[in-house]
Parts: sequence; structure tokens; C-alpha cells
Amino acid sequence: MKLSQIGELTLLDQIRKRFKKKSNNIIVGIGDDAAVLKPIYKNLLVTTDMMVEGVHFDLSLTTPYQLGFKLISVNVSDIYAMAGKPLYLLLNIAVKKNTEKKFIDKLFDGIKDAMNLHDTILIGGDLSATKSGMALSATLIGYAKRHIQRSGANVGDGIYVTGNLGDSACGLELLKRIKRPVPLERSKIRKHGAKRKELRDKSKDPMRHAPCAMLLKGLSWNTVEPLLRRHLLPEARDAKKFARYATSMIDISDGLLIDLSRLCSESRVGARIYIDNIPLSPELKKAAVHLDIPPLKLALSGGEDYEMLFTAPAGNKVRAIYIGEIIKSGRFIVDSSGREKPFSAKGYQHFCKRE
Amino acid sequence: MKLSQIGELTLLDQIRKRFKKKSNNIIVGIGDDAAVLKPIYKNLLVTTDMMVEGVHFDLSLTTPYQLGFKLISVNVSDIYAMAGKPLYLLLNIAVKKNTEKKFIDKLFDGIKDAMNLHDTILIGGDLSATKSGMALSATLIGYAKRHIQRSGANVGDGIYVTGNLGDSACGLELLKRIKRPVPLERSKIRKHGAKRKELRDKSKDPMRHAPCAMLLKGLSWNTVEPLLRRHLLPEARDAKKFARYATSMIDISDGLLIDLSRLCSESRVGARIYIDNIPLSPELKKAAVHLDIPPLKLALSGGEDYEMLFTAPAGNKVRAIYIGEIIKSGRFIVDSSGREKPFSAKGYQHFCKRE
Repeated sequence: MKLSQIGELTLLDQIRKRFKKKSNNIIVGIGDDAAVLKPIYKNLLVTTDMMVEGVHFDLSLTTPYQLGFKLISVNVSDIYAMAGKPLYLLLNIAVKKNTEKKFIDKLFDGIKDAMNLHDTILIGGDLSATKSGMALSATLIGYAKRHIQRSGANVGDGIYVTGNLGDSACGLELLKRIKRPVPLERSKIRKHGAKRKELRDKSKDPMRHAPCAMLLKGLSWNTVEPLLRRHLLPEARDAKKFARYATSMIDISDGLLIDLSRLCSESRVGARIYIDNIPLSPELKKAAVHLDIPPLKLALSGGEDYEMLFTAPAGNKVRAIYIGEIIKSGRFIVDSSGREKPFSAKGYQHFCKRE
Repeated sequence: MKLSQIGELTLLDQIRKRFKKKSNNIIVGIGDDAAVLKPIYKNLLVTTDMMVEGVHFDLSLTTPYQLGFKLISVNVSDIYAMAGKPLYLLLNIAVKKNTEKKFIDKLFDGIKDAMNLHDTILIGGDLSATKSGMALSATLIGYAKRHIQRSGANVGDGIYVTGNLGDSACGLELLKRIKRPVPLERSKIRKHGAKRKELRDKSKDPMRHAPCAMLLKGLSWNTVEPLLRRHLLPEARDAKKFARYATSMIDISDGLLIDLSRLCSESRVGARIYIDNIPLSPELKKAAVHLDIPPLKLALSGGEDYEMLFTAPAGNKVRAIYIGEIIKSGRFIVDSSGREKPFSAKGYQHFCKRE
């Protein structure tokens, strides 16, 4: 059934019922002119992020479930990047009239799974038709006892990341070759320590398809799957445990070099990072060889890893990966032979042609 | 100059500088992963609204200034509809790469003028390219000492509106005949009681143009201008003064009948309204004759008036226009001869074909 046969009000009603959740702090939820929340007695955090068809996603390469999941992850990641906790979500969704109701249901499945993962509640939004491409955005409200900005890095601080870099960009490169959406098991999406959910979608191994197997010859599904997952179903990284000692923090959405440059600009400092310290997954190394792309290129300039990048004073026992240190000025990469080269921010910028 | 020649970061930087505003309650404004606000010790209001090209607006009929102004007005209106005060704004803007920088500047002129009018501060947002149509959305955070919902109407309450209805829909009909954007004087946009701003844009009288003069023969610019203004530069109506006694409230965005129906559904009551009490402007009456559209059709089912619709118990001296009363059940319109007819919600619904 198409949305045009259902109508906006019926659809809104369904969404409202599906996402209805009681909370003592929500006085008015979805359905009025505005949501009403009880005062939040800690610092409020607010962030918003958009995903536009043909720019942030390609419906020939992603399932609606993945799209919904990612929309929430990227917004949650921004709240975590302030060492905050996400609470309330607003959604703006513009889709074509002739969109299948099933598509919207799957989109909301993904949204809901990601929301549950991070304990957020839907409090409002807007639904619209669009004549052309889809456009999605989410606004997330959260709080922080002690927020961490981009601007607090000090000379001498260590620079850390919370996980492997480049996987997401590598996943995208693989997808471009697979040339169709790859549904992934939902079972692997879980909170650290939480029970695995029951399987619902079976992972579809694209290797079984002759053209993909040809294209990705030599790569196993065990190598490909985690890379695709990092791109299609990124999990926002809760950075609470670093809040005690981190002096500055940013999430890596546009690529390590560009996001580190932002952190440096805001903190008015420089940085030196060590190539050999950049964490690369074994899957990335295998796949990058196959794709004939230097894995470091993906790790340094590929975006959407949603790992945290933060700084902390020396002397702390930091449970993250040390990649370099904050210096007075300049931005340098040190290669395996110890040679230092300056770097500039190279990452994704809207409106500009990519190099 | 095109946006593609400027780049996202430079543009963001310009916006950040232009909208920088100090406030003791903003700990971190635009430019970090999320904004950080001091706790708000009153009930928080949050709303979001989208405007999509080809659905909510047509760039062949609106100037970018008007578009920006309206984006803010529709969101502010939702906060006012809860009897709240708007405070903080987040913007999501997706435009084509080849958009002229001048277009964006004018868009932000409109956004800024409307923001100043309602004392709101920009605290964040997202900027993206789009392959197809423009998509804009805003999220607005405000507060209310005593908020008013849609659901509080009681049997016996009077039903009130705050101003003339149908003007905006009539303005749109005129615009469709004028077939091009009509810049309007900015000087008329002002707070009640505030000084008029200096003129900047001169109002362009479309009557001077031969084809328009032909099409709109018999209508003067004095008739046309206020109707166009209501559609192109709607001013959100601060409903604070009704908060003392209003039992329920909604802003009229989709048309009187549909919005009254919403209020009735939420309050689980019925309504009876009187045709003769529906306030129509003299300009609407003149123009509607010319357009050969019944003015009441525009007033009852035309959207985007952004007047407030509210209910109040009898016995209050309400400084608004009485249009009917809340009854136990059913929805009726009483015509001039006293005949009562049931009505159903007829207004704009996305995804559905219009009647």
C-alpha cells in the first residue's frame, strides 16, 4: 500500500501509538503543537543532523531499516561527543507520496531499535510529502553533568580514539561494488552487556550472488560483514567513561584528519599523530588490499566511523587508543620511519567537489 | 557566487558569526557537537516543522527572504499555541550545490528578521547539499509557566479566533495568478508597539506589470498587498494574553475546520460554529469575488493563517473573536438563516490528493 492511500493523519496516528512511552518527565508527548517536558535540572544538550537522499544515502545501497537506524545513531553520537546522555527525540521525515507503507514501517523499525538502544523517547516531529528526494532529520535533547567541548585540549595532552578507523568508508566502497542493499542481522545490535535480541532479519550474504562473488573474489563474508555493518548500522559510542578526564572531545563523522583539525582549531592548539598508532581492523586491511585502496587513506580521511576522538592529560590510565599528542601549533603525521609531515583537513565538505 | 565555490565550512563560519549572540543561559552555542544550555527551571516546550520545496513552497512564487521568515514564523506559532515563549532555534537547511550565495544570504535575512521579532537565538543546525529540491526545517525550544494543550476544551466553552481567516489562502491564489515572487516591504514587520524598522526592500507592486494588471483587473495594490503578506510573511501570534483563561488552544495552520476538528478530537468534545461570526477581511471579500472563490471556503478550509483558535469558559471578557461554542458531540456549522449542517475536517493532508 502507498502512503497516498493511507494519508498523513492515519500514518501520524500509527506512529504516535507505536512510539507512545510513558515517562514522568514528559507532560505532553507527540500530538500537540509542541511537546512539554518537566524542567531538566542539569545542563541541557541539543543537537540536530540531517540525512538527504543522494548526498548522505543512496536507496539503491541501503535498506530503510538501516537508514532509520543510522539517522538516530548519528544524532546520538553528537550527544555522546559532549559526554552527555540522550533523552528526547524529534523527527522530520519528507518522503514521496508513492512511497510504500512497508518502507516507512521498516524505516521506523530501524529508528525504534536505535532509540531503544540509547533509551530515547520520541516527543515530536513533522511528516511531509516531497516531490523529489527523501530528506530526514532528527533533533535530540539530552543532558550532561559535566559536558566536554571541542575546545578544551591543552598542549601535552594525549590524543585518543575509541576504536578502529576506516571501516565505515571501506564498507561504503564494498557496497558500491555490491551495488544493492545488503540486509544485516539485527541480532548483533545490542548494548554492551545487554542480552542479544532474537534474530529477526537473516543476514543476506552477498557472496552467494555470482556477480558479487566475482567482484569481491577472495573476500569472505566474515570479512565483508563487519565493514558493511560499520557503514550501514553504526553504533554511537557512549563516551561517559572518558568524561572524568577528557579535556576535549569530538565524534569522528567526517574523517579523523578533518575532525582532529576542528578540535585543534577550537582548542587553538596543534597536533602530532603517529601513523603506526592508527587502529586498523584486520577486516579493513584485507578488504583494502582487495579494493586497491590504501587502508590508511580510509582511516585518515574516510568519514562516518562514529568513534570518539578525545584528549586527556598525561598520567591518566586511559582505556582508549593513543594516537598522538597535542602540541603548540601545526598539524603533523609521523610515518613508520619517524618522518614528520604536515597534514591539512581532508574530509567531506558539502557543496565542494571532492578531490 | 555559487555555494560550491565557497564550501560548507566557510558558509558555516559566516552563519556562526552572523548569529552569534551572547546569553547567560547559553554555555555552548553554535559550533560544537551539541549546544549546551543552562537548566530551564520552567516547563520546556519543543517543536519542529519542515518546509519542503514543491510541497510547502514554490521558488517561482516566493523570495528567499520570505521563505526564511516563514520557516521561523510557523515554528514560533507552535510554541505560542501552547501559550509559551520561544527561546532557542536549530536549523536544518538542504540546498543544491549550485545555489547562489546571495540566495542563502537573503534566506538568512528572513530567518534573522523573524528571529529578532520573537527574541530567539540560534544555537545549532545542520547544512547539507541536496540533489533535488530544497528542504528546510527548524526546531524551536521554549518554555511556559502554564502551557495550554489542545485537549482542555469543555462543553459550554466559547470558541474564539484571534484574527481574520482565509487571507493567506487568498494570497496564495493571487500569487498563482501573478506567477512570480513579489518582494514586500520589510518595514511592516514589527513587534506590536515596537518602532517601525527603516525601509530596506521596496514593495514591488505587481499591478504595474501589464500581465498582472490584466489578470487582477479591478483589484488595487492596497487590496492585494495585505493578502500576499499574510501568505508570504505570516506573523506568529503571541497568545500569552489568552493564557489566563484559555482551556485549549491550537494554531490554525491547516485550516479552521481541520484544526478545530483536531482540538475537538483531543478534547473529546463537539463544536458548533456560526458562519456569520467567521471574521473575513475586507480585502479577502474583494479579492475572492474577483477570483470567483467563495470567501468562506478560503476562511474555513484554507490553511496557513497562523491565527490562534482557542476555547474559554463563558463569563470571561475575551479580547478575541467569538465564533461558536463547544458542545457535547458532533461538529456543526450554522449558516446565516440558522440552519445547522454537520462538517468534516477538510484541510491539507500530505500524501493525499486534494479534493
